Amino acid sequence: MKSISSRDNALYKELKQLATSAQARRKAGRSLLDGVHLAEAYLQQAGTPELCVVAESAVYHAEVAPVLAQCEATGSQCICLPDALYQALSQVENGVGLLLIVATPQPQLPAELTTSAVLLDGLQDPGNLGSILRSAAAAGIRQVFCSAGTAAAWSPKVLRAGMGAHFLLQIFEGADLLSLCKTSKIPVLATSSYAQETIYQIDLTQEVAWLFGHEGQGVADDLMDAAGVKVVIPHLGQMESLNVAAAAAVCFFEQARQRQGGG
Amino acid sequence: MKSISSRDNALYKELKQLATSAQARRKAGRSLLDGVHLAEAYLQQAGTPELCVVAESAVYHAEVAPVLAQCEATGSQCICLPDALYQALSQVENGVGLLLIVATPQPQLPAELTTSAVLLDGLQDPGNLGSILRSAAAAGIRQVFCSAGTAAAWSPKVLRAGMGAHFLLQIFEGADLLSLCKTSKIPVLATSSYAQETIYQIDLTQEVAWLFGHEGQGVADDLMDAAGVKVVIPHLGQMESLNVAAAAAVCFFEQARQRQGGG
Repeated sequence: MKSISSRDNALYKELKQLATSAQARRKAGRSLLDGVHLAEAYLQQAGTPELCVVAESAVYHAEVAPVLAQCEATGSQCICLPDALYQALSQVENGVGLLLIVATPQPQLPAELTTSAVLLDGLQDPGNLGSILRSAAAAGIRQVFCSAGTAAAWSPKVLRAGMGAHFLLQIFEGADLLSLCKTSKIPVLATSSYAQETIYQIDLTQEVAWLFGHEGQGVADDLMDAAGVKVVIPHLGQMESLNVAAAAAVCFFEQARQRQGGG
Repeated sequence: MKSISSRDNALYKELKQLATSAQARRKAGRSLLDGVHLAEAYLQQAGTPELCVVAESAVYHAEVAPVLAQCEATGSQCICLPDALYQALSQVENGVGLLLIVATPQPQLPAELTTSAVLLDGLQDPGNLGSILRSAAAAGIRQVFCSAGTAAAWSPKVLRAGMGAHFLLQIFEGADLLSLCKTSKIPVLATSSYAQETIYQIDLTQEVAWLFGHEGQGVADDLMDAAGVKVVIPHLGQMESLNVAAAAAVCFFEQARQRQGGG
């Protein structure tokens, strides 16, 4: 394992760029996976990282050592940094001192929707996006399409909130949701408090695409029109609406319940 | 409506304290409701604010004017501030310039659990707490008990994420969850990926209390032991777990579904 001790080292300067600039990550086609849990999930589901970076104090940590060993065995470059230099790369407070640099997956956009999916129109909050990815992966959904105005799916915050869901899903960013809705081979469902049909009445054993929107403004009007089916999550209380990630979880798991034969 | 134009005004100084210090709010038994939506929800559900504060530029705003009128009609003190002074009180970016100061509700702690409720053990994230309150209120649950280590329920962030749910619920902070679990008259349910029984198999038409824990560490061991019933949300994918607010939404709405006769 190589050690770097100078802030002026070229590789360290590049890492610092990747760690602090979303634009640099996008340009380089790289993502930063911060912490042991994401690293383990990546190695298990996705493959070989380009670079494994460890803080000096973490090299022999019980959870870090096996990750490091696996990275070295698969031929990833591993580097060790003094804690002070490492800290400047990590956004995780009280983290364990391990991060991976990986190639951001760029799955090929399917021509049309044919399998259960999630469409996100202008979703803003990284925590909500991460939670939705996690719920989708847990409910057995495999594809997520994000509009250009949706939060960046591979940002450190969304990765952290996603807890490894990113590596179980195909995530398509900058997707043209309107065109996907119009050409979809499966029903596109949007939740609306004005809908008559409930998520319990509609047949969710079939493949469906779920459409969710911006936290405040919801789904854009043209998309809402293009979505073939409006469904409602019936409330028992006077509350007007749910948080979008909570609503998504309820929908995805009603689909999972029906697919498992009604639970 | 009174106008205040000096930063040295005694009432303004008090407001600034309340706006910027959780401790000051707790001491004073006051909460700050920032924005039109929370103000409307409070007036509709809860009652008369102590103070209504408006930015000069917002006085004639279409959504602010009726709130202001209702506050004046019910005898709340209303004050107007130059925008610069108002900005120092508000955490909402691009907000409309209206906030209420209200007495923080202090509902009397029931002796034991007898009606459907949520117990939160060390939940950390304000967004998750707000989302859980919102889901609980929408699913017809009325009581929420928070351990001493849980995020402050009446903080501006949790209020914002709760979208008015606070005024539909009884929220008990600093609750002794272990004692509540031990004396509960209704089943206390905790989710566990090791449980055999699913949330779909268990009878949720009865009153139940739902126990959720810290985002990373989950529910404390002693509490988990005291919870009578472990249930699992069955997954279809390989994802290990859900975000706690997503899991709570799935549970609350499975209860609502069963209570509505299976949907």
